[in-house]
Amino acid sequence: MPIQAISWTPSGDVRLLDQRRLPGEEVYLEIGTAEGVADAIRRLQVRGAPLIGIAAAMGLVAGTRELRGAAREPFLARVEQLVQLLAAARPTGVNLRWALERMARAATTAAADEAGSALWERLQAEATAIWEEDRAMCRRIGEYGLPLVPDGAKVLTHCNAGALATGGIGTALAPIYLAHEQGRRVHVYVGETRPVLQGARITAWELQHSGVPCTLIADAAAGALMRQAQVDVTLVGADRICANGDFANKIGTYGLAVLARHHGVPLYCAAPWSTVDATLAEGDLIPIEQRPPEEVTTVAGRAVAPAGVAALNPAFDVTPARYVTGYLTDRGIVQPPFGTDPAPA
Amino acid sequence: MPIQAISWTPSGDVRLLDQRRLPGEEVYLEIGTAEGVADAIRRLQVRGAPLIGIAAAMGLVAGTRELRGAAREPFLARVEQLVQLLAAARPTGVNLRWALERMARAATTAAADEAGSALWERLQAEATAIWEEDRAMCRRIGEYGLPLVPDGAKVLTHCNAGALATGGIGTALAPIYLAHEQGRRVHVYVGETRPVLQGARITAWELQHSGVPCTLIADAAAGALMRQAQVDVTLVGADRICANGDFANKIGTYGLAVLARHHGVPLYCAAPWSTVDATLAEGDLIPIEQRPPEEVTTVAGRAVAPAGVAALNPAFDVTPARYVTGYLTDRGIVQPPFGTDPAPA
Repeated sequence: MPIQAISWTPSGDVRLLDQRRLPGEEVYLEIGTAEGVADAIRRLQVRGAPLIGIAAAMGLVAGTRELRGAAREPFLARVEQLVQLLAAARPTGVNLRWALERMARAATTAAADEAGSALWERLQAEATAIWEEDRAMCRRIGEYGLPLVPDGAKVLTHCNAGALATGGIGTALAPIYLAHEQGRRVHVYVGETRPVLQGARITAWELQHSGVPCTLIADAAAGALMRQAQVDVTLVGADRICANGDFANKIGTYGLAVLARHHGVPLYCAAPWSTVDATLAEGDLIPIEQRPPEEVTTVAGRAVAPAGVAALNPAFDVTPARYVTGYLTDRGIVQPPFGTDPAPA
Repeated sequence: MPIQAISWTPSGDVRLLDQRRLPGEEVYLEIGTAEGVADAIRRLQVRGAPLIGIAAAMGLVAGTRELRGAAREPFLARVEQLVQLLAAARPTGVNLRWALERMARAATTAAADEAGSALWERLQAEATAIWEEDRAMCRRIGEYGLPLVPDGAKVLTHCNAGALATGGIGTALAPIYLAHEQGRRVHVYVGETRPVLQGARITAWELQHSGVPCTLIADAAAGALMRQAQVDVTLVGADRICANGDFANKIGTYGLAVLARHHGVPLYCAAPWSTVDATLAEGDLIPIEQRPPEEVTTVAGRAVAPAGVAALNPAFDVTPARYVTGYLTDRGIVQPPFGTDPAPA
């Protein structure tokens, strides 16, 4: 079974795998307040855009538990306050704000005579719905992707698009987990994903935890692996997919896409449909976050390059649609164009 | 000026930059014995195949200094003993044995009436010749390569094929140093070269030390850089070049070669002519060293992956000749086939 990154405790606290302690230790946090969940988001103890949204929704439920006896107005005032607090934990995340807006709406659109207890029930139901929808979305991606992972398949992946980024079994890793559960022999090559090493620290950990055979490689070893015909399919996630199918994902994805095409290896981009941004006509319009050079010049706090050397650290790159065999989504394996009214270029 | 990795001290000791202390500290060892030089080779304080050969030759000179008053037989006996000792320091290096055989021959083929003092002069002359030949070879590679690095050139390199691997100004970096000395504006993108990080630790250090503008990148960022037309030429070294032009170099070179070809970026393989192994018909005959998985699962002694996870760690990959624009050698920029009698496949 894939690891469950988030759940409720029997007493109604939020139980979160502390991803900052990976891969060294498997430690779970049990958090009973919205402030505590906001801290965990801020400290990157929970990461992965869908998972952050779910954690915030659940944190709002835990944080309003004590107010079940309150009147409507103080209850809603507190919800508003905690939504602001949670939304500020990571200001750039789209899923975080989206989940919190859903939660706020569930409370504020309730009948005018509902007070604390009924409102809290609504919050709890909405958080559960957000989580359940994410789990179902992951599972649908996995089911649509199952034909890509036949018995004996050797799969290459990059970064982390797995259970630890979602409330369910992940996106790119979802078909791998389902194939493994069905008894298919699957082997996953995991690119370590410098500079932040999400492949080594997180993907290798969650695959190992679930008993899925995997082998870690330096990112630069992917070419030799493909040349030796050791990769049957490449499965990667996406941070944003444009109307024309160009997509942004962790730096290194584009290089893998070129190598995959050169060697005739199919490459699928796996993501929930909500990743499609039909307002962007093409990939070069996606803003690419430049992260601190220290992520390249240090590893785990230790300098690996001379002091003062310049380093370029784009967090993402853009892969044009022509390198993509198909888009593995919760609506099936689909092809662009996506959306009907792309923004003017 | 490129860094000088090796030299004599005024008192006749061997002065070596301690490469184990890079990039944190620039510390020079001054070693007066062959045993001390053998230790430095064993401890990887000195690395790079040509440089190791030069260091061993110079260590033999330093180690026989005290015997200048000795008779012929005890002097030659000591040379034989020290040659064995030095050759054992890194048993796989070709240049090390080649240099020591030259040194032994210089002593044993001397006139029968020559004793300690004259024999020692011969050793000193031979070590100097080995070093000078290497320096001259690097310079010729640099001069032949100068047209590849015009004013404004943006060069991508991988691993370390620089001054710190040779007795001179390096191989792939040689034309860059000469262009920089001539006042051409050159910018070097340095792939960090996981898992051992020779690019980050050594190449970035020696370029920075010489004032050559450079930017470190994660290996996985090379594709995006080429897509953005930020690379005019790719210059890499070689560990072995086959008769047909296929060559082995640090893992990741093949991936860069595919990317370079895909983006129309020329790729040159820079190496002394002695790197050509005309006995091997093609690259797939080159044995590829598999190194310990711990180089991938740890960085600077710290675990970056879960305990027990499998990792693949080929030290080299093979780039077929068809990806190579030209071979930059001390005999000029040349094309295969090399040698006249390739071994049967």
